[in-house]
Amino acid sequence: MEGIQVREAILLSETIFDKMVTSLSGLPGIGRKSATRIAFHLLRMDPNAFQLFIGNIKDTKENLKFCKLCAGITEHDICDICSSPKRDSNILCVVEQPEDIFFIEKTNVFSGKYHVLNGAISPLDGIGPEELRIAELEARIENQRVEEILLATNPTLEGDATASYISSVLQKFNVRITRIAHGLTVGGTIEYSDQYTLSKAIQSRLPFR
Amino acid sequence: MEGIQVREAILLSETIFDKMVTSLSGLPGIGRKSATRIAFHLLRMDPNAFQLFIGNIKDTKENLKFCKLCAGITEHDICDICSSPKRDSNILCVVEQPEDIFFIEKTNVFSGKYHVLNGAISPLDGIGPEELRIAELEARIENQRVEEILLATNPTLEGDATASYISSVLQKFNVRITRIAHGLTVGGTIEYSDQYTLSKAIQSRLPFR
Repeated sequence: MEGIQVREAILLSETIFDKMVTSLSGLPGIGRKSATRIAFHLLRMDPNAFQLFIGNIKDTKENLKFCKLCAGITEHDICDICSSPKRDSNILCVVEQPEDIFFIEKTNVFSGKYHVLNGAISPLDGIGPEELRIAELEARIENQRVEEILLATNPTLEGDATASYISSVLQKFNVRITRIAHGLTVGGTIEYSDQYTLSKAIQSRLPFR
Repeated sequence: MEGIQVREAILLSETIFDKMVTSLSGLPGIGRKSATRIAFHLLRMDPNAFQLFIGNIKDTKENLKFCKLCAGITEHDICDICSSPKRDSNILCVVEQPEDIFFIEKTNVFSGKYHVLNGAISPLDGIGPEELRIAELEARIENQRVEEILLATNPTLEGDATASYISSVLQKFNVRITRIAHGLTVGGTIEYSDQYTLSKAIQSRLPFR
């Protein structure tokens, strides 16, 4: 009986600890083992550092929202790219996730605006076209002059299917539809390129300048 | 000039976002890429779920502390294991981290008490014996009757070195010093066991019962 009490006492601390582990293991890419490691790290953290850690996360969460037009992240209702008169409104780059905007912006080669779908068509995950921001894309094409839609969904089964679907839906509009190129990695070798990328690279060949 | 303004505006949102990413990438096992994925997950989280997430982490952090005796996690000053008269005070199991106590408790085969070192000797990481709770271990042996010290540091270079060091330091006391056994994984095969484990398993062989 008393032995049982001891085990229950230990389990109680484990339950409080478990609250943290369970919360952390809900994050993408974090399993229970990593969550346990992170939880112990947080427990060991000096209280000021912990406050700063939680404060930084809450600050960002409270100050950033999703742009009402493109669904990219922003501090305002409409993001800086959508509201900028310097960006070309005639070309919309369609991406799966808001984070994709960051990566494309870093290349410095795109001066148009963006449209985030918030995912890709994936029947296995129960994501159909209605779950994506495709109606919003059509509305934007109807309400402003758009000349080109650059489909920059990922070169995956889901991303390719989404690009095909959107392309068919947009046939009714007078817009040029383009797809981001697939090909060899710059600095990579043919030897280490996979066969799918290599065949895409050959099919998408361009005149040599 | 105006083009520069646009880029600065974008960088501003990136800076606020960066606060979250930088905080997250300070967690063990989380690189910048995983931190970015987690940050976008948190931004997408519904505000109530986010509050719950932060609340659970803060709750655990505020309610759990480290036991003043063994340094395991607890809700009180002295943990339930250290304060339990049902646990055998004559045997102390020495572990590297508080989390190791959880794993050993789950086996249900150890009824003694624990002592957490908070690490292992690792000259490359600048961790010497002074950084570990070895003086506290000696004090416990001096202040209470201890018959056996079970060294359950990890079977790594650092864990083995720490076990050897502690064993030599404790020679002055009249205690039996034991080491957790190394050997084949239960359910594993000789074929897939590494040569170091296999040689330890042979050297540590026991009479067949």
